[in-house]
Amino acid sequence: MEKHNGNPARQRKLRFGIALLLTAIAAFLVISHLSFSSFCPQHQTSKPKKQNVIFMVTDGMGPASLSLARSFKQHRDGLSIDDILTLDKHIIGNSRTRSSNSLVTDSAAGATAFSCALKSYNGAIGVDPSKNPCGTVLEAMKLEGYLTGLVVTTRITDATPAAFSAHVDYRWQEDLIAEQQLGETPLGRTVDLILGGGRCHFLPNTIPGGCRADQRNLVEEAIAKNWSYVSDRELFDSLDGGKNVSLPLLGLLAPTDIPYDIDRDSKVYPSLAEQAKTALTALSKATEDSDKGFFILIEGSRIDHAGHHNDPAAQVREVLAYDDAFKAVLEFADSTDVETVIISTSDHETGGLVTARQVSPSYPDYLWYPNVLLNSSHSGEYLTKKILTKKQTKELSPESFLSFIEKEIVQEDMGINDYTSKEIAEIQVSADASAEKLLYYLNNMISVRSQTGWTTHGHSAVDVNIYAYSNSKRINEILYQREAYAGLLGNHENIEIGTFMETLTGVNLEKVTDMLKDIKHHPEGKRASVNGADIHANAY
Amino acid sequence: MEKHNGNPARQRKLRFGIALLLTAIAAFLVISHLSFSSFCPQHQTSKPKKQNVIFMVTDGMGPASLSLARSFKQHRDGLSIDDILTLDKHIIGNSRTRSSNSLVTDSAAGATAFSCALKSYNGAIGVDPSKNPCGTVLEAMKLEGYLTGLVVTTRITDATPAAFSAHVDYRWQEDLIAEQQLGETPLGRTVDLILGGGRCHFLPNTIPGGCRADQRNLVEEAIAKNWSYVSDRELFDSLDGGKNVSLPLLGLLAPTDIPYDIDRDSKVYPSLAEQAKTALTALSKATEDSDKGFFILIEGSRIDHAGHHNDPAAQVREVLAYDDAFKAVLEFADSTDVETVIISTSDHETGGLVTARQVSPSYPDYLWYPNVLLNSSHSGEYLTKKILTKKQTKELSPESFLSFIEKEIVQEDMGINDYTSKEIAEIQVSADASAEKLLYYLNNMISVRSQTGWTTHGHSAVDVNIYAYSNSKRINEILYQREAYAGLLGNHENIEIGTFMETLTGVNLEKVTDMLKDIKHHPEGKRASVNGADIHANAY
Repeated sequence: MEKHNGNPARQRKLRFGIALLLTAIAAFLVISHLSFSSFCPQHQTSKPKKQNVIFMVTDGMGPASLSLARSFKQHRDGLSIDDILTLDKHIIGNSRTRSSNSLVTDSAAGATAFSCALKSYNGAIGVDPSKNPCGTVLEAMKLEGYLTGLVVTTRITDATPAAFSAHVDYRWQEDLIAEQQLGETPLGRTVDLILGGGRCHFLPNTIPGGCRADQRNLVEEAIAKNWSYVSDRELFDSLDGGKNVSLPLLGLLAPTDIPYDIDRDSKVYPSLAEQAKTALTALSKATEDSDKGFFILIEGSRIDHAGHHNDPAAQVREVLAYDDAFKAVLEFADSTDVETVIISTSDHETGGLVTARQVSPSYPDYLWYPNVLLNSSHSGEYLTKKILTKKQTKELSPESFLSFIEKEIVQEDMGINDYTSKEIAEIQVSADASAEKLLYYLNNMISVRSQTGWTTHGHSAVDVNIYAYSNSKRINEILYQREAYAGLLGNHENIEIGTFMETLTGVNLEKVTDMLKDIKHHPEGKRASVNGADIHANAY
Repeated sequence: MEKHNGNPARQRKLRFGIALLLTAIAAFLVISHLSFSSFCPQHQTSKPKKQNVIFMVTDGMGPASLSLARSFKQHRDGLSIDDILTLDKHIIGNSRTRSSNSLVTDSAAGATAFSCALKSYNGAIGVDPSKNPCGTVLEAMKLEGYLTGLVVTTRITDATPAAFSAHVDYRWQEDLIAEQQLGETPLGRTVDLILGGGRCHFLPNTIPGGCRADQRNLVEEAIAKNWSYVSDRELFDSLDGGKNVSLPLLGLLAPTDIPYDIDRDSKVYPSLAEQAKTALTALSKATEDSDKGFFILIEGSRIDHAGHHNDPAAQVREVLAYDDAFKAVLEFADSTDVETVIISTSDHETGGLVTARQVSPSYPDYLWYPNVLLNSSHSGEYLTKKILTKKQTKELSPESFLSFIEKEIVQEDMGINDYTSKEIAEIQVSADASAEKLLYYLNNMISVRSQTGWTTHGHSAVDVNIYAYSNSKRINEILYQREAYAGLLGNHENIEIGTFMETLTGVNLEKVTDMLKDIKHHPEGKRASVNGADIHANAY
């Protein structure tokens, strides 16, 4: 029998007191830990919970694009200087963009840096510098049970979406990219949802809008394999904002690019925000009962094209359309209980855009003019097509053509009233020379008047911004670390963004790389002809 | 007598146990609170401790300057792509730069945004849009007992340092700025330490290197008022790295600008890092026994000039010299017990610098060439002076002049071997035309070959980076807040940086504004002539 000493009542009181204290300490430890871990960075240690990864790319958007679009919007809407873009509110760092073989990357190497978390050469689609296929975060997540999607405004076979879902030595192998995107890979099908342009490489070149060198009709083949297919606005609308989607979904809404937002007829084409919302709703619904979420790539593809075209009026609208999409994605993240991370960045800057341009030999005024961009109601691309179409009108007199250029194009579409007769004549001369010359001439008229500068029709090497958001405190703790290969705060190599997604989800890219070694990726024979593709579309 | 029950030994043990637990809880509370408050944002509530505020400006440095300088350094030193600038490791956000009257600011309005925390018009030095003098953070801190300093590489009377220490309607009123900087204000003397160039506006134009319109010799007047004065490297060295400084210190090391770092003879001029270290040591020592620290402005002034000149070879060295200074300032912060905050940002971008330039009508390669900048061993400014001096040589034959241009200038100084005879002839023609034409022609030869783009000799409107560091967890908690007028994480108006310094130190700018209303700030008569000042120096 135990030895008892003293007053049992008092001892009980003391024991009760100690128990109470121990409970208080335990409670305090738990609360302190929760509070601490809620706000303070720490490495992920436990098994990941269900997660959605939303990776967004502003192709070709450099720092100056933001200043340009923000000031344009403030001017257009009469906003205060504090009324900034949604993107602005979520900037977390910036990214260095060089590829393995140049200080100036292309979109293929840029996207492969994100998808495979490695530096490769300009032109590389999901292959390393030795042309070995490399597993992508999309593929790795698919193999782990996530659903996956690609949403773009250019061809779905173009470099950025391709680098997540295909493996070819050169970005121009778009016929092969289309085949792989539909599942012709050692991994089987890895993409569950496709929305964008680019029917071209899914259809034989014997069909209008098709450009495959072989005679395969991948659309018919996909339908036979139970893909649902939407090819126009009406069918897109039948998806009911994503509530009525049967996966896998193949949405190819244009032969090549979806028109620039400045030109877009909303009766014919959805906006990027509409596409994104539909995709998020569909993927969210389809993963409702899964313990895995989804991975989606959403690209504002044509900011890059406006850069290549040196078209500031088109670019500001592309950036604002992307900002709307980004806002919609944020709203999705805030509406779901699933831990969701949004990362938005660019692969590179395009055009060498500068929000200032010296237009006189004398010392320049410190000004630029957003109203010139506002007055212009169409892209140079649209106006070029309009002029060249008009030019083919039967029995069009030179006088009528000049009058058309002056009244319809310059005054009405471009909103320019201080033009010279020399400029009108130059437009006519350019139209005779080439579509490219005409395009560049028209865009230059806007750029000079708005005092917007460009230094190239290609890319530049400036660091690009990184934006991020999560509805999860746990993920924010990881995001807001500064160290390389830890978080995304501060300055990072673009490959660190790929590694971030790999680490966050705990997937294994190397395992996928091993499975891919027999995939067909070298080009065969001659380069496939590209009908209807944009000027330089294969060099972007 | 107290009633005792039970076993006293056991009760003592229990009491001891409870005491131990209470101590543990107390310790845990303290540690938890410390850990929590170390990492997590919270508003400042208590009275500020002793603080040093180090505000650093990279005049004219935009995002592309960083990419250019970083890749240049990696190329020059054979570094890996992860070997980034010291600045890169401390990026915290970016700043919108427009002034009250233009989307493109000048340095005067840019610096007034920082110093007075308000938007003013281009050209405004410490005055608001209605030309009312506004109290600056430097003045407000001085009135609270801080010591203050200005360290620059251009004229100390130029816009950035002037906007912290003077009040004039137009930046070109540099004679008046100099007077105010020496204490001719209703506040008395507010600057304790001056280091930089710009003797010009302190000396009458009857003295070599002087350019005052009146006949005052402010240097002699300052010495009579007990300022110590250093005017050359030898006297600078006598300051013993700041250990042997008697305040107030007037250090005017050049008539106008200190030479670009690429041209700088270290036997004649100290580097920005040396100037900064000397100033920090001096101010730190002088505030050793005070309960107030110091405010200092340190400017990499001539990044802007290299931008105006479109001189990429000079610019990369200016940025790297600034990065060295930034590193030295970080080391100072880590060496002191005084809570120290470092903020580094730009007023604007200059030149429309792009790290890519299309040099052919055909589609551009995605490349730029840092080796061209490395091969060039002098600035265009230096070479222009060298050529124009040579041109004045008596009995110089045209052949000798051409040979000098080809061998000494182009081959040797510029490191260019693929020049054409047409280029050599053009240099000669430009030298006959004007210094400006020659300067721009030489710099363009380097820019084209390195494929560096520029769109203006003026400024642009792109957002500029914000970098920050503190040795104090308390200050970091404040810095790393995102909201406008709270911290500096993310995207901010430039005026928020001024407000940040005001709030952090708890000074009152309005109080200073009230005291300043009788200061002389309107210009009188004709504009003072500016001898020896740089091309466009008064419009930067």
